[in-house]
Amino acid sequence: MKQEHKDQVQAAVDALRARFAVGKVKNFYFVACGGSQATMMPIQYMFDRETPIPSFIYTANEFNYAKPKAFGPESVVITVSHSGTTPETVAAAQTATDCGALSIAFSNVVDSPLWKAAGYPIHYDHGPETDMTDRNNAVLYDLAFSILTIIDPDQAARWEQGVADIDKVDGACKATWDIYREVAESFATANKRAPLIYTMGSGVNYGEMYSLTSCLFMEMQWIHSNAIHSGEYFHGPFEVTDYDVPFVIALSCGVTRHLDERALAFAKKFSERLLVFDEEKFDFNGIDESLHEYFAQWILGVTVRSFVDKLAHDRGHALSVRRYMWQMEY
Amino acid sequence: MKQEHKDQVQAAVDALRARFAVGKVKNFYFVACGGSQATMMPIQYMFDRETPIPSFIYTANEFNYAKPKAFGPESVVITVSHSGTTPETVAAAQTATDCGALSIAFSNVVDSPLWKAAGYPIHYDHGPETDMTDRNNAVLYDLAFSILTIIDPDQAARWEQGVADIDKVDGACKATWDIYREVAESFATANKRAPLIYTMGSGVNYGEMYSLTSCLFMEMQWIHSNAIHSGEYFHGPFEVTDYDVPFVIALSCGVTRHLDERALAFAKKFSERLLVFDEEKFDFNGIDESLHEYFAQWILGVTVRSFVDKLAHDRGHALSVRRYMWQMEY
Repeated sequence: MKQEHKDQVQAAVDALRARFAVGKVKNFYFVACGGSQATMMPIQYMFDRETPIPSFIYTANEFNYAKPKAFGPESVVITVSHSGTTPETVAAAQTATDCGALSIAFSNVVDSPLWKAAGYPIHYDHGPETDMTDRNNAVLYDLAFSILTIIDPDQAARWEQGVADIDKVDGACKATWDIYREVAESFATANKRAPLIYTMGSGVNYGEMYSLTSCLFMEMQWIHSNAIHSGEYFHGPFEVTDYDVPFVIALSCGVTRHLDERALAFAKKFSERLLVFDEEKFDFNGIDESLHEYFAQWILGVTVRSFVDKLAHDRGHALSVRRYMWQMEY
Repeated sequence: MKQEHKDQVQAAVDALRARFAVGKVKNFYFVACGGSQATMMPIQYMFDRETPIPSFIYTANEFNYAKPKAFGPESVVITVSHSGTTPETVAAAQTATDCGALSIAFSNVVDSPLWKAAGYPIHYDHGPETDMTDRNNAVLYDLAFSILTIIDPDQAARWEQGVADIDKVDGACKATWDIYREVAESFATANKRAPLIYTMGSGVNYGEMYSLTSCLFMEMQWIHSNAIHSGEYFHGPFEVTDYDVPFVIALSCGVTRHLDERALAFAKKFSERLLVFDEEKFDFNGIDESLHEYFAQWILGVTVRSFVDKLAHDRGHALSVRRYMWQMEY
């Protein structure tokens, strides 16, 4: 990770440490939209599991218009916007700053409106030509693990290991794609004319499935979709399952694996079109086993993206094509 | 409301009051599956808005397998299962009881497993032949407003009014259906062969849209769907909008109305198949204006159900038909 990124994370962490020392870290609000919100879902999940300090995730305008009553000067608000211009996310960061909350923001654009609205802006790089350790997930995980080191000191060694293991993710993603390339590309080709593909997952993976549904399928491919929580599948959604209804299913290597396995066992019986990413088969490239669950969703995300690259190619529908986004005012 | 239901709610409220008086109400967990979870989403939203005590909602097995660290003896856990047999919901209620948390459960079946697992079980009636004030929403709202009276005493008069206004909902639903019948039934007939219908809403209404998607469309009609949050629409999902893609959109009369209006204004331009339920046009039958937002989603739910009755009729697909649910082990 670049020193610039390290320093920006460190400044936010130092500010949090000072507040935490005087009992002024009452709750965490993760606030963003679409894919940026999805990027923080696993972090919110991790905080929910690992710390008794309440944490919440909101799409930005829900936070802005239906302000939670627990929000205040002792809150920590973490925002993400790639361009740094998403108006509702900028507004949330500004509200946090104005009320005296700790306002931390991630953006690809230095000096963007979001950058200026937050007290502690953090830059990340983007695109295949950049180092994996400088991209959004890397800086976000670095911040998250660093915060956990402070608020969960009993497991400080584990969280410090997490920071160190960020370096291993690039290798893990490459090795995992080698494992999944054939099955994922075959599924892409076989389903290139599918008008609808469901996604399913649970726990730490739900955000990645949400992102696959909302951003990759609906936004970038105009494929109808819905991110079904594995725990909800049997309580309604499973009735749409049929031989020709495709699903992409993430099997967690973490504590919610049972939910995914149960959903998969059923889906297998009635759909002939399943693409299953089983995190227990991932190559973790030496990442500490106690952190596999949390890192797996990141590796999953990179793997899913490679799958969608093939799908887009076979459909002749470039991922950059939009009919509304950036084409008009809305 | 029947005295039996009143008494059961009162017992739970008294237990909560005793705990609250000694500072032992640290957080609220709303835990259930599918439609039962959806029924509690507006309550969790209301608590989030109206009280600084953190509240969370989980599908039951996510709560069971990925236990939040803040859960403990000072938690309040509220569960719902219609039959009282949903194993994961029963397990959640039992876990709450066993650890000394306040475990409150709603079920249509007295002495069901859920009933026995919870410290404070509350019965509700079901079906068109029963009084609206004894059904699930009524007892749930009665409990919610009664709890707010305790934990938000500054607004006690408002919450007591809420309890009283439950009696007005039946009249409001009937009058509102009179307003919406024609447009809703026309939409149902026009879209009876639609393989997919999206739903969209925000804030207090999101749960109702989730229920419409997961239970009414996917489960009971085998119609593909996704409940899009109005605040997320522009951050991915809107790219699937097209002239022949149908949407059911709820326009809140509450604080998140702006999100819905913005989404609707766009959807109107590119889809010719919109069914819009505008809560500002609802007949509230004298319900206190300060409570319109919270009651509107309940009236919306009843209205939506009448719309789906017509859709099911025109499709020749009875709402009671299932191919998997209750037909086999899963």
